[in-house]
Amino acid sequence: MAAIYDDQNIFARILRGEIPCHKVFENDDAIVIMDAMPQSPGHCLIIPKAPSRNLLDADPAALARLVPLVQKVAQAATVAFEADGINIMQFNEAPAGQTVFHLHIHVIPRRDGVPLKPHTGGMAPAEVLAAGAQKLTAALAAL
Amino acid sequence: MAAIYDDQNIFARILRGEIPCHKVFENDDAIVIMDAMPQSPGHCLIIPKAPSRNLLDADPAALARLVPLVQKVAQAATVAFEADGINIMQFNEAPAGQTVFHLHIHVIPRRDGVPLKPHTGGMAPAEVLAAGAQKLTAALAAL
Repeated sequence: MAAIYDDQNIFARILRGEIPCHKVFENDDAIVIMDAMPQSPGHCLIIPKAPSRNLLDADPAALARLVPLVQKVAQAATVAFEADGINIMQFNEAPAGQTVFHLHIHVIPRRDGVPLKPHTGGMAPAEVLAAGAQKLTAALAAL
Repeated sequence: MAAIYDDQNIFARILRGEIPCHKVFENDDAIVIMDAMPQSPGHCLIIPKAPSRNLLDADPAALARLVPLVQKVAQAATVAFEADGINIMQFNEAPAGQTVFHLHIHVIPRRDGVPLKPHTGGMAPAEVLAAGAQKLTAALAAL
């Protein structure tokens, strides 16, 4: 598998502020944004600031700092989106479904009996993403 | 969502040695075993020893210790099973696909163009699981 990091990937550009996103949270280590092509209402992403292509080439210390944030986002998403379950998914390389080659972790709220939409399901309306970001930001702050 | 931990779940019983498994690795924090119903060749699980139902009620410090092991298993599985990609998946509650209510993280090697088998695909033959465990143990030791 290739391990080349290309800093023109879309998440690197979002981290540099070159393109907009629906941001939920930011600290020294990561940002949390709404996925623009959500597989369920409230689908969001944790994106570490440290550049790595995926999990395989990431700094283990940076990963260890990231995971408590993943947990908090999962807890907050449960509240914000009245979820019955949460999928955590992280894809490494294209055969595993990775499409943006900067490490990111999917947090996907699930409702009982509602299947996931395919990730190629198209962009959600901006107002839907903005409302989701607002809900999740509030739920994170209230944890 | 309920957050009750039942210590009669199958992974708690495996951790206590009450039922057998195909073990790959063990340290103070976790065991790594082959998934008995693999979605792809080499599908394995990281199971922390600390009891929690899933990510939502886990101890954040225990999670932070766990993640470098997830990375190592993903790296080793890439080598051991000549994977073209790796899926990391972690399910919280039944509507998200969780079937055993003790936190566990799936590491699923992927080959280009080969879809995942459904998780209800039945038990793999013991000799296949044993051979996978042996390969993965060797790859972990060689990292």
